[in-house]
Amino acid sequence: MTFDPAQVKALTFDVFGTVVDWRGSIAADLGAFGRKKGITSDWVEFTNEWRAAYRPMLNKVIAGETPWAKLDDLHRGALEKLLRQFGIAGLSEADKDYVNKVWHRLDPWPDSVPGLMRLKKKYLIATLSNGNVALLTNMAKRAGLPWDCVLSAELFRAYKRDPKVYIGACEMLGLQRHEVMMCAAHGDDLDAARKQDLKTAYITRPGEYASGREPKVKAEGGYDVEAKDFIDLAQKLGA
Amino acid sequence: MTFDPAQVKALTFDVFGTVVDWRGSIAADLGAFGRKKGITSDWVEFTNEWRAAYRPMLNKVIAGETPWAKLDDLHRGALEKLLRQFGIAGLSEADKDYVNKVWHRLDPWPDSVPGLMRLKKKYLIATLSNGNVALLTNMAKRAGLPWDCVLSAELFRAYKRDPKVYIGACEMLGLQRHEVMMCAAHGDDLDAARKQDLKTAYITRPGEYASGREPKVKAEGGYDVEAKDFIDLAQKLGA
Repeated sequence: MTFDPAQVKALTFDVFGTVVDWRGSIAADLGAFGRKKGITSDWVEFTNEWRAAYRPMLNKVIAGETPWAKLDDLHRGALEKLLRQFGIAGLSEADKDYVNKVWHRLDPWPDSVPGLMRLKKKYLIATLSNGNVALLTNMAKRAGLPWDCVLSAELFRAYKRDPKVYIGACEMLGLQRHEVMMCAAHGDDLDAARKQDLKTAYITRPGEYASGREPKVKAEGGYDVEAKDFIDLAQKLGA
Repeated sequence: MTFDPAQVKALTFDVFGTVVDWRGSIAADLGAFGRKKGITSDWVEFTNEWRAAYRPMLNKVIAGETPWAKLDDLHRGALEKLLRQFGIAGLSEADKDYVNKVWHRLDPWPDSVPGLMRLKKKYLIATLSNGNVALLTNMAKRAGLPWDCVLSAELFRAYKRDPKVYIGACEMLGLQRHEVMMCAAHGDDLDAARKQDLKTAYITRPGEYASGREPKVKAEGGYDVEAKDFIDLAQKLGA
């Protein structure tokens, strides 16, 4: 089946890894924080470990094993364990809050803002992230991400890859499933979106996975569009 | 108590009447639609009657007398009655859908976009409207309203002036109540926000009420800021 970009009305974007470089941003931000506070640590490994706690936490929520909580709160719980694990002590509550909100201060990949500006001229562009609304809004404001609206798994008290998130986003935008294209650097996100009849765009982000931390489940492939970055995506969608 | 604008972090805006001129926009849009379709009607009165159906519909939802439905659907129900009342027949489903979505095509007051651009530099700016997310997002995209995020009563399956809407918005933004300022041209909206400890800004919109259709309940007054438009609001908040 050939794909017709004219049928798509909205693009929904995964954010962590797809729009922003979480690893580089957090390692740099916490590195600066550490220098100011006189704390020495392997901040890249700290960041990788924090991210590694993410999927198991969300899976517990999806499975109903832990009650729904917004990502800021899940990050904060994981942070407490990480600080012990890395032997970092003596942080005030304000310090911990600042460190936890590093997820609000992520920098976009270089093509993200110019690519989104182009895509926005032709399509409605929205986040569809597991990040909570405050996190995504603060991030967008700081980084200049020009979203038409901020959609989050928080709105559905669920987490991707729960079908509720994809279905809920389409309904909230007042669009048919095939009028919405999920754009992500993660195959399993796209596989889950495609099961709900959304269109899919795979974005290659070579910097997304640290060595030895590639996903264990191989993505199915065969997405409607594959692009190397957001400029390439704009070109391929005629935007 | 003196008011300190530096304590406020986010401004949430009522939209219909406060940001956009619903009466002028709808009367003009439907006037053009009528001319194209050869339908003659008093479109200003049609618009006023449509709006008059709004508050009673919402009050039924707030009272639990009718189940929650998004504003697009409530507008559509009211439209069917209005078309009969004004003797307008023969519209297709697509025509009715187009007419109903006139609420997505409202034009801002002349100061709205430049005022919001200034306010956005200092504050997080968001909608907090009874309009559903799709309505507010489509409106913003068409009119160039530079929201940082689109918050709607839809997210809380409630309607202003239900306290859930104001409380939910503050929680979703991750802010304390006194860090959020509700901005509206309607005193009862501000009175309800103030009861939940939000800050309040009253915007005079002389064109908001048609003659003989002024609100029956007088607003309490004494808001933190009173401004004649969004430029004046920006000036008074030092933005």
